[in-house]
Amino acid sequence: MKTFGYFRSSAAYRLRIALNLKGFAVDHVPVHLRAGAQHSPDYLALNPQGLVPVLVADDGAVLTQSLAIIEWLEETHPQPRLLPGTAAERARVRAIALAIACDIHPLNNLRVLKYLAGPLGIEEPARDTWYRHWCEIGLAALETQLAREGATGRYCHGDAPTLADVCLVPQLANARRVATDLTRYPTLLRIDAACNLLPAFADAAPARQPDAE
Amino acid sequence: MKTFGYFRSSAAYRLRIALNLKGFAVDHVPVHLRAGAQHSPDYLALNPQGLVPVLVADDGAVLTQSLAIIEWLEETHPQPRLLPGTAAERARVRAIALAIACDIHPLNNLRVLKYLAGPLGIEEPARDTWYRHWCEIGLAALETQLAREGATGRYCHGDAPTLADVCLVPQLANARRVATDLTRYPTLLRIDAACNLLPAFADAAPARQPDAE
Repeated sequence: MKTFGYFRSSAAYRLRIALNLKGFAVDHVPVHLRAGAQHSPDYLALNPQGLVPVLVADDGAVLTQSLAIIEWLEETHPQPRLLPGTAAERARVRAIALAIACDIHPLNNLRVLKYLAGPLGIEEPARDTWYRHWCEIGLAALETQLAREGATGRYCHGDAPTLADVCLVPQLANARRVATDLTRYPTLLRIDAACNLLPAFADAAPARQPDAE
Repeated sequence: MKTFGYFRSSAAYRLRIALNLKGFAVDHVPVHLRAGAQHSPDYLALNPQGLVPVLVADDGAVLTQSLAIIEWLEETHPQPRLLPGTAAERARVRAIALAIACDIHPLNNLRVLKYLAGPLGIEEPARDTWYRHWCEIGLAALETQLAREGATGRYCHGDAPTLADVCLVPQLANARRVATDLTRYPTLLRIDAACNLLPAFADAAPARQPDAE
C-alpha cells in the first residue's frame, strides 16, 4: 500500500491520521501541489481529478477521495474502528466529517484561493478573510452541535477517536494558518488537544512530514 | 420519517432520489433558502449548520448532511442497494459521489455565490463563470474516469443506480442552470439520460417539487 499526498493538504492529513490509527506504516509519495505536480500527465493518469490523496492498494487498485479511502480502510481493516457501532451513531460521525469535508475545506482549497487571486483579482487580505469566514461559520456550527450533544465525549463521538476527529484536527490546523480566533470554539479546542496527545494524530501533522517546507 | 429541503438544493435533490429509490414516500418540508428561512431560530435549533437537507427519523433522531443520511438509509433499509457488493466497488462509488459533493457542489452553493456578490463585489457574469469553471473541471475529470473504467455501465457503476448517480444527476442539473456546455461529457450525459428514465430520479427533479418557483 502506498499513498500520494502533500504535507499541507488537509485531505492527505486526514488519510495519514487514519492510516496511523489503523497501525499501517505506509510509503507516502509527495506531490508538490504548490509547484503544480498534480497537473503532470503521470499524476493525471493516476487521478484525473489532479487532487490528493490517492491510495494505491497492494493489488494495484487506485483509490481517490480521502473519505472514500478511509471508508474502504474501515471495511477492509475494521480494527480499531473509526466508525461507531450503530447506524445512528455512524450517521452522526459521518455528518460531522462531511460538515468539514464538504462545507469548510473545499472553500479553502489551494485551487480555489488561486482562482480568487487570478481570474477574480482578489488581494491577499480579502482572500484570508474569505478563508476565515468559511472556517468560522463552519466551526461555529460544529461547536454548537458538539457542545450540546451528549454523544460528544473526550473526542467528537465518545471516548475513542473516529472519522469525525480525523477531519476536525486538520481543519483546525488550516484555520490556524489564517489566524482564525479559535477561542470561540472551546469544545473543538478541547477535542483537538486530546487528539494531538495521540501519536497517530501528532505524527501525521504537516510539520512532521518529509516534504514539509 | 420527514425531511427538510428546498426544491433547488442539489443536496436535498440527492436525498429525494435516494428516498424514492428505496421506495419511501416521505413528507418533504420546504425551507425557503432564497428567503433565508434556514437562518430562523427554529431551523437553526434543528440544524446549527443552517443547511438542507435534514431528515427526522421516526424515533425523532435528527440527521444532517445528505451523504451521511443516505449511508444511514443504506444501512437501515438495504434494499435496493445504493452501494455495490465489494469494498473496492464501494470505494469507487463513494469517490465519484465525493468528487461531486466535495469538489464541485460546495463551490456553487447559494451562500458562496452570495459571498462573491456581497463582500467580494463580483458581478453576475463573473459569478456564472466561476460556477461553470468548477462544474467544468469537476465534470471533465469524472468524464475521463467514467469513460475509461470498465466498471462503468448503464449507470456510473454497473447496471443499477448507486450513490454516484444520486449525486451526478443533481450536479448536471446545476451545471445546466449556468449554461455549461455538457456535450463535452458524453458519458455523463448518457448516464444522466438513463437515470432520468427512472421515476425515482424524474420525480425528484426540482421542477416537480411543490415549492418550485
